[in-house]
Amino acid sequence: VSDLIEAQASEPSAPFLRACRLLPNDRTPVWFMRQAGRFLPEYRAIREQHLLLEICGQPDLAAQVALLPVQQLGVDAAILFADILLPLIPMGIELEFSAGEGPVIHNPVRSSQDIARLRAFQPEQELAHVMEAIRILRGELPSDVPLIGFAGAPFTVASYLVEGGASRNFLATKSLMLSEPKHWHTMMEKLSDVIAAYLVGQVRAGAQAIQLFDTWVGVLSPEDYRQFVEPYSAAILRSVAETGVPTIHFGTGTGSLLERMHAAGGDVIGLDWRTPLDQAWERLGPVVALQGNLDPAALLAPLPVLERRVLEVLSRAGGRPGHIFNVGHGIFPQTPVENARAVVEFVHTHQIQPALNPEV
Amino acid sequence: VSDLIEAQASEPSAPFLRACRLLPNDRTPVWFMRQAGRFLPEYRAIREQHLLLEICGQPDLAAQVALLPVQQLGVDAAILFADILLPLIPMGIELEFSAGEGPVIHNPVRSSQDIARLRAFQPEQELAHVMEAIRILRGELPSDVPLIGFAGAPFTVASYLVEGGASRNFLATKSLMLSEPKHWHTMMEKLSDVIAAYLVGQVRAGAQAIQLFDTWVGVLSPEDYRQFVEPYSAAILRSVAETGVPTIHFGTGTGSLLERMHAAGGDVIGLDWRTPLDQAWERLGPVVALQGNLDPAALLAPLPVLERRVLEVLSRAGGRPGHIFNVGHGIFPQTPVENARAVVEFVHTHQIQPALNPEV
Repeated sequence: VSDLIEAQASEPSAPFLRACRLLPNDRTPVWFMRQAGRFLPEYRAIREQHLLLEICGQPDLAAQVALLPVQQLGVDAAILFADILLPLIPMGIELEFSAGEGPVIHNPVRSSQDIARLRAFQPEQELAHVMEAIRILRGELPSDVPLIGFAGAPFTVASYLVEGGASRNFLATKSLMLSEPKHWHTMMEKLSDVIAAYLVGQVRAGAQAIQLFDTWVGVLSPEDYRQFVEPYSAAILRSVAETGVPTIHFGTGTGSLLERMHAAGGDVIGLDWRTPLDQAWERLGPVVALQGNLDPAALLAPLPVLERRVLEVLSRAGGRPGHIFNVGHGIFPQTPVENARAVVEFVHTHQIQPALNPEV
Repeated sequence: VSDLIEAQASEPSAPFLRACRLLPNDRTPVWFMRQAGRFLPEYRAIREQHLLLEICGQPDLAAQVALLPVQQLGVDAAILFADILLPLIPMGIELEFSAGEGPVIHNPVRSSQDIARLRAFQPEQELAHVMEAIRILRGELPSDVPLIGFAGAPFTVASYLVEGGASRNFLATKSLMLSEPKHWHTMMEKLSDVIAAYLVGQVRAGAQAIQLFDTWVGVLSPEDYRQFVEPYSAAILRSVAETGVPTIHFGTGTGSLLERMHAAGGDVIGLDWRTPLDQAWERLGPVVALQGNLDPAALLAPLPVLERRVLEVLSRAGGRPGHIFNVGHGIFPQTPVENARAVVEFVHTHQIQPALNPEV
């Protein structure tokens, strides 16, 4: 790990990594969550031949998919192609992606016995295909396009694990948390140990930044977050920070949680479109970079409307260092590719001068 | 209407109405969203005999259902039994409640033609059964248990109308809003005219307060809210305010929208559990009452856990006038009735003294 820290210690030149470190940039870096996903025709063609878990399991294929948006859109970062629920499989979870319905877990976790059965494992061995995909990607990516590794945060992973799939109200998850706090903490500890090792493994394999996806954590109150989630996300982010790569801490619906998420960690806080960037910076202070926060629905609007929206986000960022342009949640499958391309070009050619913004 | 204003002008004695007016109370009033719903065995028995829309259409039955929680739980307010989508039926919408799946709209609105076909109507005539249910309820309710009338706010109603049912990402709704803003505004105007007339009709029939449910508005950014929603909700709340009854303006996931919702109107802002009451008051100032904000998931927890949660909400309110205790979203069907009863009793017997709270 000390080698890694050394490798990261010099000032990076890639705009994405510079933004993570709050270093000034002459253009705002941009990438899109789910940029390698279903909105790309080339991806859909691959998906017609392979199940989602097959692509994740074949390093060549996963790398090929992760490269698509770099080639097609000109984004400033690539992200590993994987699913946040992958680490559950070696833990003994029967995971399936059913067509159109998202993930289904056939043996959801509800009792202390279920939790006891969750198997600890060494991600660098048992998820070696992920590490291999990272190594391939690092060999193929241009030097100014860093590779982001990622994992689901323990709360969000736990929510699928307990509910057995996607949920609207997270009632089973919250019930376990409130009614069986001891079991909850045991489960979260197991998950965060695995997730931390998985992410450190990704960095060792070559990931140059890490995003922790706590996609559904916005269903919690700040007090529940503090008590039941924060220590685990904090431990993971601390482990990754020790490797020397920057971390991005992302969630949706986190308007009331930002201070707590920031306390848990992350060089960058990833925001959805609900909280304007300037307000987030006002609340969190200038010590943190922000990633976001175009409503992905705007990518389906006519180009003049879309460009006005992009400009609004850039204006809120006000040209200050430490802004990574992104959507506030995954890009929709219905997004026209040319619109995504137009956003990248627009962001790259519309640099806001901080001097023009008296508040910066 | 001037008679109504006069009737409401004298200082109310019911704790619920006093809280709406920021008047001091010797106990915190409490009611539950969906208190007349599926968690009550008596309601489920009635539902075995009748479809949801049948109950709404039969004033005697609707009144009987709305009375259940007053009799069974001892809540401080009754709420009309109806559905927020009822006004769509006379507008020409084919609405069905399919078992377990929630509302389905067979002819969703997507084009300017669809919007043009939405029929304006007189709610006091064509939703006369709702008005009749209100009159029956007012005859049967104790004098210290006021009756709340309600409607869906135009954004939330529009979201069902456009999506054709419940939605996770509201993509069709946002696409119409962003791509066809003129059509969007026409639709919102039609909806808000009907909703305003419907609510004023409910007040004329005897409703003593009105709650406007903008349940899903939290999916919007503050700027989209300001531009596409606020004028319409404001117009409705203004029309109701002119009748002299207090208004409650409710939404979920509104952590980033509170200031704008407050600007739109409402004597009371209804909060979900994500924003602590003290923080909401800090942001909105002392001129507004607050309703909330227990996580309804807590009602499924063991009693000691549940009571600690209730006490936390009461402590955040700090005994200041203008707090109505409620859940932050509808009570879950799985809620044990005895837990709901225990919350009412606990709230009634645990009065926080503002003097003990140095910040009030």
